[in-house]
Amino acid sequence: MERRFHTVGIAGLGLIGGSLALALQRLGGIAVHGYDLDGDTLEAAVHAGAITRANEGLGECDLVVVALYPGAAVHFVEEHIAELRPGTVVADFCGIKRFPCAVLEPLCRARGLYYLGAHPMAGKEISGFAAADANLFRGASLILTPTEETDPAALAAFQELCREVGFGRLVRSTPEGHDRIIAYTSQLAHILSSAYIQNPLSSDFSGFTGGSFQDLTRVARMNGEMWAELFERNRDMLIEQIDELTLKLGEYRQALENEDSRALWALMEQGTAIKNRLLAGASDPKWEEV
Amino acid sequence: MERRFHTVGIAGLGLIGGSLALALQRLGGIAVHGYDLDGDTLEAAVHAGAITRANEGLGECDLVVVALYPGAAVHFVEEHIAELRPGTVVADFCGIKRFPCAVLEPLCRARGLYYLGAHPMAGKEISGFAAADANLFRGASLILTPTEETDPAALAAFQELCREVGFGRLVRSTPEGHDRIIAYTSQLAHILSSAYIQNPLSSDFSGFTGGSFQDLTRVARMNGEMWAELFERNRDMLIEQIDELTLKLGEYRQALENEDSRALWALMEQGTAIKNRLLAGASDPKWEEV
Repeated sequence: MERRFHTVGIAGLGLIGGSLALALQRLGGIAVHGYDLDGDTLEAAVHAGAITRANEGLGECDLVVVALYPGAAVHFVEEHIAELRPGTVVADFCGIKRFPCAVLEPLCRARGLYYLGAHPMAGKEISGFAAADANLFRGASLILTPTEETDPAALAAFQELCREVGFGRLVRSTPEGHDRIIAYTSQLAHILSSAYIQNPLSSDFSGFTGGSFQDLTRVARMNGEMWAELFERNRDMLIEQIDELTLKLGEYRQALENEDSRALWALMEQGTAIKNRLLAGASDPKWEEV
Repeated sequence: MERRFHTVGIAGLGLIGGSLALALQRLGGIAVHGYDLDGDTLEAAVHAGAITRANEGLGECDLVVVALYPGAAVHFVEEHIAELRPGTVVADFCGIKRFPCAVLEPLCRARGLYYLGAHPMAGKEISGFAAADANLFRGASLILTPTEETDPAALAAFQELCREVGFGRLVRSTPEGHDRIIAYTSQLAHILSSAYIQNPLSSDFSGFTGGSFQDLTRVARMNGEMWAELFERNRDMLIEQIDELTLKLGEYRQALENEDSRALWALMEQGTAIKNRLLAGASDPKWEEV
């Protein structure tokens, strides 16, 4: 199958956008035009051979991937939409999907552009172009959130390119389905790690903790700017998740308070059963694998 | 320094006791007498060369390590104390320390035995002698909880043996200090992992989660029998920890509810600062390193 995309614009050359630029360059035959507000980042990206043009040439792109925080992503498209040729595919890589999809889809459609919502399930504990890595997406999942308005040919071509870039698994959800799941698997996990480490005892035990403590606090170091925006734009679903977890913790507390071994045991058994099911790789009926 | 212990009894040949037996055999020059209620376990331990005698010879031991659940550990010592020679060192490896110390220390003292409380910070997600490993303790921490009654020479000799077995770090605390910290670093971590995975959404996303989800749920598979006892015998401190965490989660919830970005950001900053401090290996004034 011949590639549809020959010139790709990338807005935001941080960890995600920078890694995508490097991965595309490695494929060969694709010109990458990079956009970033930070001059040093642009320079580094040119120097690394990740981009061929800096902050120009958007009109020549047949695909533009926006790898910015949600508000900035929408702002970038609004600001540059007049430069884009009709028929260009515009994909955003934001970590929440309801907000960008709701704004960008009608905006793009009105200008004859094809919008796609996507979320690469890849990251590192450090950010910025310096952390970019052509292998970042290798084996990772990409969640796509097409709607009834999505152009099937644009989606197919984009998926093809994502496979070339190294993504190991492409799955489809709705913007709502994505945001609900991500509130749990990613956002709540980060809040939990951060809340757990903020304990008066946390300075009392440096060094001698088992693996469970290390695992729980691995992601406690957070990019506050990015996460605050992601959390706030998904606050309804995130609050639901915090409440859900608080209730469950309350069940453990109640079992302890009541000295009810049977209840305590039953709670652990439930968790063990779910973990075993996940380890066995139970298939998932609600997500459509591409 | 010449070794004080030449014949070591081990009660309970599960993951911990079995690993200790294998590690002691590897040192050479030490006879290991193993005790276990399960015949197959004893047979496997003899077959593996981990123990030289099975369920006998306790009177010849100069050190007895009890690697059983807390209630069973106390029961074992009570049942066998008449067989032990005066001067024998009795150490327990329970994951909580107030309960065994309170019972075993006076019991041993009355019989001319030297009691030591210890907690090896090592484990695996599987249990039983089949999972035992002579390298399990290599580099791990051992928490010791001596009291005013502890015999200094017995403690020094035991510490020496533990270093030979491979422990990388020996630290001292009080039984109370140990139980408070362990309620947080280990017990709460396990409850959190178990509570987090028990989510109505947990069957909706198999396979495509980032590392944060995997980290948080690694220890969700729990040995309910062991943990229920450890939790219940530490319930006061564990309930305190659950309350502490629930309060902190409530702060995140409140910041989201109020759409207070500044508060949300500040919470994340606090967590990040603590994590950075831990990564920098800040020293710990409250724990006395041996």
